[in-house]
Amino acid sequence: MPSNYRSFRKSVPWLILFLEAVFIILFYFLFSGDGASRSDISYADFQDVNHMVIFGFGFFLAFLKRYSFSSTGFNLLIIVLGVQCSILMEGLVLLQKAQEGGLKSITKAAVSMTAVVISSGAVLGKTNPIQLIVMTIVEIIVFHVSRWINKIFLQVTDNISMMHVHLFGAYFGLAVSSRFSEPSPRSEKNASTPKSDLLSMLGTLFLWVFWPSFNSVLAVEDKSKAIYNTYFALAVSAVTAFALSVLTTKDGKFRMTHIRSAALAGGVIICYAAQSIEYPWIAMILGLLASVITILGSFCSQRCLNPALKIHDASGVHLTFGLPGVLGALAQVVLLVIKNRTDLPSLGYLVMIDIGAFCLTISVALITGFITGLILNFKLLKTIPVSKYFEDHFYWEFPHLAVGF
Amino acid sequence: MPSNYRSFRKSVPWLILFLEAVFIILFYFLFSGDGASRSDISYADFQDVNHMVIFGFGFFLAFLKRYSFSSTGFNLLIIVLGVQCSILMEGLVLLQKAQEGGLKSITKAAVSMTAVVISSGAVLGKTNPIQLIVMTIVEIIVFHVSRWINKIFLQVTDNISMMHVHLFGAYFGLAVSSRFSEPSPRSEKNASTPKSDLLSMLGTLFLWVFWPSFNSVLAVEDKSKAIYNTYFALAVSAVTAFALSVLTTKDGKFRMTHIRSAALAGGVIICYAAQSIEYPWIAMILGLLASVITILGSFCSQRCLNPALKIHDASGVHLTFGLPGVLGALAQVVLLVIKNRTDLPSLGYLVMIDIGAFCLTISVALITGFITGLILNFKLLKTIPVSKYFEDHFYWEFPHLAVGF
Amino acid sequence: MPSNYRSFRKSVPWLILFLEAVFIILFYFLFSGDGASRSDISYADFQDVNHMVIFGFGFFLAFLKRYSFSSTGFNLLIIVLGVQCSILMEGLVLLQKAQEGGLKSITKAAVSMTAVVISSGAVLGKTNPIQLIVMTIVEIIVFHVSRWINKIFLQVTDNISMMHVHLFGAYFGLAVSSRFSEPSPRSEKNASTPKSDLLSMLGTLFLWVFWPSFNSVLAVEDKSKAIYNTYFALAVSAVTAFALSVLTTKDGKFRMTHIRSAALAGGVIICYAAQSIEYPWIAMILGLLASVITILGSFCSQRCLNPALKIHDASGVHLTFGLPGVLGALAQVVLLVIKNRTDLPSLGYLVMIDIGAFCLTISVALITGFITGLILNFKLLKTIPVSKYFEDHFYWEFPHLAVGF
Repeated sequence: MPSNYRSFRKSVPWLILFLEAVFIILFYFLFSGDGASRSDISYADFQDVNHMVIFGFGFFLAFLKRYSFSSTGFNLLIIVLGVQCSILMEGLVLLQKAQEGGLKSITKAAVSMTAVVISSGAVLGKTNPIQLIVMTIVEIIVFHVSRWINKIFLQVTDNISMMHVHLFGAYFGLAVSSRFSEPSPRSEKNASTPKSDLLSMLGTLFLWVFWPSFNSVLAVEDKSKAIYNTYFALAVSAVTAFALSVLTTKDGKFRMTHIRSAALAGGVIICYAAQSIEYPWIAMILGLLASVITILGSFCSQRCLNPALKIHDASGVHLTFGLPGVLGALAQVVLLVIKNRTDLPSLGYLVMIDIGAFCLTISVALITGFITGLILNFKLLKTIPVSKYFEDHFYWEFPHLAVGF
Repeated sequence: MPSNYRSFRKSVPWLILFLEAVFIILFYFLFSGDGASRSDISYADFQDVNHMVIFGFGFFLAFLKRYSFSSTGFNLLIIVLGVQCSILMEGLVLLQKAQEGGLKSITKAAVSMTAVVISSGAVLGKTNPIQLIVMTIVEIIVFHVSRWINKIFLQVTDNISMMHVHLFGAYFGLAVSSRFSEPSPRSEKNASTPKSDLLSMLGTLFLWVFWPSFNSVLAVEDKSKAIYNTYFALAVSAVTAFALSVLTTKDGKFRMTHIRSAALAGGVIICYAAQSIEYPWIAMILGLLASVITILGSFCSQRCLNPALKIHDASGVHLTFGLPGVLGALAQVVLLVIKNRTDLPSLGYLVMIDIGAFCLTISVALITGFITGLILNFKLLKTIPVSKYFEDHFYWEFPHLAVGF
Repeated sequence: MPSNYRSFRKSVPWLILFLEAVFIILFYFLFSGDGASRSDISYADFQDVNHMVIFGFGFFLAFLKRYSFSSTGFNLLIIVLGVQCSILMEGLVLLQKAQEGGLKSITKAAVSMTAVVISSGAVLGKTNPIQLIVMTIVEIIVFHVSRWINKIFLQVTDNISMMHVHLFGAYFGLAVSSRFSEPSPRSEKNASTPKSDLLSMLGTLFLWVFWPSFNSVLAVEDKSKAIYNTYFALAVSAVTAFALSVLTTKDGKFRMTHIRSAALAGGVIICYAAQSIEYPWIAMILGLLASVITILGSFCSQRCLNPALKIHDASGVHLTFGLPGVLGALAQVVLLVIKNRTDLPSLGYLVMIDIGAFCLTISVALITGFITGLILNFKLLKTIPVSKYFEDHFYWEFPHLAVGF
């Protein structure tokens, strides 16, 4: 084991310092205009999104009993690295245009990073920091390229292309995860304790409360409608989660994982349509559908899907972010058809664009995720053996006495 | 036991889904106007109140050692159900008038739900989800009726009638609680651990920080004065809590429960008068009184009151919200008398209105709470035996190994 | 032991109640003008700072395994006492001028209290409540006097003199700490558990997210630039923390304490210059330096410095707030020199002022801290024996069964 430790010392710090040096140099060349003071985004909006990604997701993922240091710590690490990378990518892509205000660029970067956080949830406990950092950099670059293609070739607005984060993150993560060996199903470490479940509930409630900010932060038309609709979708999905959880568990009890996933699914499903839905009942029905697909999906995938596809989805990102995202994209198309049903020619065009953007995003996510998964398993990146999965002790000093964690 | 579980499966989900279907249908008929975009309440204000009820109260009530899943989980369930019901009630009551902006209606609903959350604190650990849901629906309807009577017959402004939530919630909850059998005083489960006490402190600090938002969110005249006065009342009540706790405990030590209750009592006592108090020292004296009545009340009630009245107040809501609320209503009358002491005729009228609204609210709360308590004990609602009080395992799946909770 | 307990009952409550009475009387005489409604600070800004000091620092300091009640509880106590004292001091100092708006005075008081919270971190677990209260009152008065000298004699602006809180708090705390006997290095109680480390991480992430608010709340010129620069400094210091932690620990693993300290150091180092830095890369380099000095400082001080100076810095405030503060003050001078390099005469004057203010603040902090340390060790204040250090049971009731904390 000691040799293993020493090898981290030889790789992790230098990789991080190298990246940081590159970032500082690029910032020096790219951001020497005075962009900080102009901004059409308020500090409170930025703060909410920042709180969600740093705090909310950090604790949302802290449900494994021996992996809470890594969940919160590595989450901080990849966010702060990824945000810098994302701002640079945005700067490079927008090079010819006037740069956006300072706060707006950080906010957009934080929203983009949600994709990486979701992907990191899919491989939670299986990747070492080197792999996580490589995945972060690759994914954020690919995500920006995907957004750029969406924008140039399909004229998708910035706001909508940004809402693909959930879809992109979930399917990229699943594709990466398919390249990692599965932990033993009886692994004692791949489990939660009541305490860690409660910590994760804490993170989930944070995300739940801030989700309307997330869906409205980049809204251009009607912020307050986006907030209103998102709240109703979240409320109904949380209510439905309790009903469906009792129906699908063996003993007719509530399962914490169901509540956590399904309560957030309502926010994911409405992300595309939040600004354009006219009446709250539509948002409520979407929230209900989100909960249904998440919990029934969990019921089915346990029994048939996952064993067949050999995917081990460490924290249920497919159910929380993937499926509701797909359903949300479909819902937007249906709503579009209903709204523009009199104007058939332009309708066809709009539907094509939406479906095209959706398919493109998922394809890019799956293909690049698969390739990234292959890259991450290179010997060079010091893959960890299955027996060391889900283990804080492998990465963190534990000077504490060996008390019951 | 298995029969018991199966019976929850047959009742809880269908009750929830039935309610949700009713809500969606009512929303379809009532809220098809475009009310979402207009609003005279800022998103930040709404966010604060939302954070308080979902996160703050959820963890504030999580102090029982085997009941933290239920405290946070069921809190989320009743809030999201109750908010929808409250928006509908408000919509029905205001039918003839122009509907209020979208965010404002959710915010008012969240403030109203505080009453239900406080009541649920009084019966914490004794009710099953069916009872909780029935209580939520009944209480929120009765609360809106009480507010409507206040408004129509006593011309009480919306803002003041909404601040009756603490009083209403506490006395409704106590009346309901009086119909539940008392747990054995030596019950090992009706206790906290240092860890759960700390979680509850986390929720309390959240509530403490956000309380000025709560008292100012519906203020029409002078928001910043309401914030300022609430802060001082909270500060002094927190300081005094430490002094009185040492004076009243057996060993001269601090008691966490005292600090938690008394620190919040300052925010409750000032809720009526926050907008109209001119000088901070008045707010400070009110904060001091709140702390005194909470901690002395706790001292007395342990010794004489509760055993005599046979009330078991599971989380001290009478001391945290009930008594300070009563004192706050009296304080408002006194302040009114001092302010208008030159204009005797109108003074008499104003005092009558205030006292009338106060008595009406408490009477309605006590009577309907008592009746609700009787209803909740119907066999149909599957009352739980005393031996199963305060027990997460009864409602939640625990796949975890039996580690020390 | 019982005699000890009884003696707390005879002293703590009366000290608190006496102080509170004095405060209310002073408020009566000083704040009877109608200052509450005017304010040039938004409620959201005030809220963020309030959240940081009450919640963030409360849990940031909760890392000791048997001291989490005291960390969060006493933090609340000293903040609410100190804020009132600070508002009064500000009122006395500004007597001749028009009083500032209500919210602004509370916000400034909360920012000032950061100094006391930092100092209390340096003596964490060693002081009883009486000593803490005395220290709070003395420190907040001295801090205001130091700011007043800065202002009158050196024409330092309010905003900059307020940013000395970190420096002042750290060196005052260290000087006080030098007068307390050191705990045995093998003391089992002076340690954290994984759980308490995680709680402290929770507080740290809160502080991290809100730090841009802290640095911008009193900014007069360019709030959004201050936010922007602070974010970059925090991001780079967090990233660098992970790299350096692996390099300096024995096994090449991450150390939670390093991450916590160094992630915040970036916000401290930039506090003086946040408003005036033009390009993000400068902020990023400062963030990197902050992390380097914190973690290398921790590496060196463990081996040589602390044993030589006989300072026991209970929660690493010297590394988190002291050294980065010093470096930040130096950085500001360097940036000033670069900016005004063409205008030599005024440059000399500006540099003198900056260095003067810096030296004055540190000297005042060290000298008064040392004297305060002597005062706190008077028999009258009931100093606690080393064997009772870091022990919640000494101050708080523990009705809980003796479960594993």
